[in-house]
Amino acid sequence: MNKVCRYGSHRVIAPIGALPQSSDKLDNTMICQSNEIMIDVKTLNIDSASFTQIKAACGGNELDMMTMILSIVEERGKMQNPVTGSGGMLLGFVKAIGSDLHLDLKVGDEIATLVSLSLTPLKIHKILAIHPEKDQVDIVGEAILFETGIYAKIPKDLPSDIVLSALDVAGAPAQVALLVKPGNDVLIIGAGGKSGILCAYQARKSCGPKGHVYGLIYDIKEMDDLKKLGVCDEIIVADARKPMMVYELVMQASKGHLMDVTINVVNVPSTEMATILPTKDTGIVYFFGMATSFSKAALGAEGIKSEAKMMIGNGYTKGHDVLTLNLLRESKTLYSIFSRRYGSKE
Amino acid sequence: MNKVCRYGSHRVIAPIGALPQSSDKLDNTMICQSNEIMIDVKTLNIDSASFTQIKAACGGNELDMMTMILSIVEERGKMQNPVTGSGGMLLGFVKAIGSDLHLDLKVGDEIATLVSLSLTPLKIHKILAIHPEKDQVDIVGEAILFETGIYAKIPKDLPSDIVLSALDVAGAPAQVALLVKPGNDVLIIGAGGKSGILCAYQARKSCGPKGHVYGLIYDIKEMDDLKKLGVCDEIIVADARKPMMVYELVMQASKGHLMDVTINVVNVPSTEMATILPTKDTGIVYFFGMATSFSKAALGAEGIKSEAKMMIGNGYTKGHDVLTLNLLRESKTLYSIFSRRYGSKE
Repeated sequence: MNKVCRYGSHRVIAPIGALPQSSDKLDNTMICQSNEIMIDVKTLNIDSASFTQIKAACGGNELDMMTMILSIVEERGKMQNPVTGSGGMLLGFVKAIGSDLHLDLKVGDEIATLVSLSLTPLKIHKILAIHPEKDQVDIVGEAILFETGIYAKIPKDLPSDIVLSALDVAGAPAQVALLVKPGNDVLIIGAGGKSGILCAYQARKSCGPKGHVYGLIYDIKEMDDLKKLGVCDEIIVADARKPMMVYELVMQASKGHLMDVTINVVNVPSTEMATILPTKDTGIVYFFGMATSFSKAALGAEGIKSEAKMMIGNGYTKGHDVLTLNLLRESKTLYSIFSRRYGSKE
Repeated sequence: MNKVCRYGSHRVIAPIGALPQSSDKLDNTMICQSNEIMIDVKTLNIDSASFTQIKAACGGNELDMMTMILSIVEERGKMQNPVTGSGGMLLGFVKAIGSDLHLDLKVGDEIATLVSLSLTPLKIHKILAIHPEKDQVDIVGEAILFETGIYAKIPKDLPSDIVLSALDVAGAPAQVALLVKPGNDVLIIGAGGKSGILCAYQARKSCGPKGHVYGLIYDIKEMDDLKKLGVCDEIIVADARKPMMVYELVMQASKGHLMDVTINVVNVPSTEMATILPTKDTGIVYFFGMATSFSKAALGAEGIKSEAKMMIGNGYTKGHDVLTLNLLRESKTLYSIFSRRYGSKE
């Protein structure tokens, strides 16, 4: 193995000179280097775009999905979906801590990684169960966290599977908190999903009484949860792949006001224009979904003469884990939705 | 044809409900609707990422490249590269103006479209010549510009092929002008290319005497032009697909200062990390290259715990055409580089 690198480039097998995330293949030898943390992995939380792609490719057959996941990790040394490029995160127990690291962490602590599985060396010994309803896979396996890899200790007051589900998308509500100002009109595209309800809740907090939150959902089944949460001024049911229809429905709901901030947390392709079209020229478009196409966004905005600032969702913001878990502590309704959807069934 | 739409959705054949840019196929019937402009096309300026891909796919054979371009337009009704998703722009003469449009424009005016070819209905009757050195193709053909489609009249004081080349990337220097503040340290990745030299020149103007401009080039052949232009504090020769090496070379040049703004105008994939790594946590990363991968940027930044703001290059900014052409009017050196590289050889 090469000289250890804080970004983990010493684990990159190909292409040479790449960093772990953009690499094709990582060295997943389970020896803990001096600046690494080794983890006994309990659960993988697969990124939604990736899980959706795997499910579709396998026609929903769970055994085929397991085989596909195993073969991706076998091939790449990491759980990075070759189609979507995305990963997810994991839950496990600290197995070893490299001698150069001085952290508030000890062997046996339960942690969730906050960096993508797409850059995390991983070895799966066995898949125990797959949970399609929450994009999670229970495994016996090991993983490596690099020096710059971030993690969160699982707090005592919240169940670990709920924490894992929430932390998976922690970057999104934290960015909403930074972007949305009092009085803003905010549209959340994909407001019924895991990331969406957290974003809608945070948007309501940030835009205040003079602002408006519009939640767009695809599946009417998500309506109940979002209504119960009571943070959206209007809930719009529409297909975000149909930008003109989305535009008209949003304008109807907002009485003709374009949005200050539009957040896209959808996990299907071709929703870029529905995000840009209802947004002000001086507004901000924030793409969080891993199915976002860079060129569709860039050329689409130009094509309709939009000057909106378009941002690439960054999964990391200082304190995003604490902010997100505090939302679950703060709202009983939010917690109960997470508990029902992503909590353990036992 | 459907009811006319200012965004051109009446020309979308598939998928239904999409806007022209994200569509698979446009109706390129050459009848000028009431809110459209019809153009006699003289030259296509293919987007660099697309042209590079076509050239590579055809092993540089010009006849094969022509056939490939013809078949893309035949298939899609627009010149949108199915691999890169990108287009380019065109130069031509106004042939007809829809009755609902009231513009400062008349039949016979020479214009360049400022919206992407990826959303422009196009018919090619014949390819006359291909110019690999400037990504341009001379054709006999027609195109349609929608109501929201932007264009620039070719000014009298500059040759049309040079104007076309410059306007193709006009969004980039205009964004540099908005993003770079006095005293900023700026890195341009791909500083020797067409977009890169304009960005480097504008960055120098915007960062002022207390700021620094670092230009990264891949091909040492571009060194001379960039040196002559005299706007970079340091020119670094490196492969932007090797992020660790880029990081070290930039840190060496800047004496350890991370960048305030990094602009990526490279047309090859996997340069995202080299862009993020040398940039401050509080800095701005601006991606202009159509080869940028959304997920590589998003997950890569998270993976190294970077909070840098990552923006999707928007080809449109108010007044970007005038700003860019003024750079050519202002600097004799810049003009002479453009003239030699992209000017007519006759």
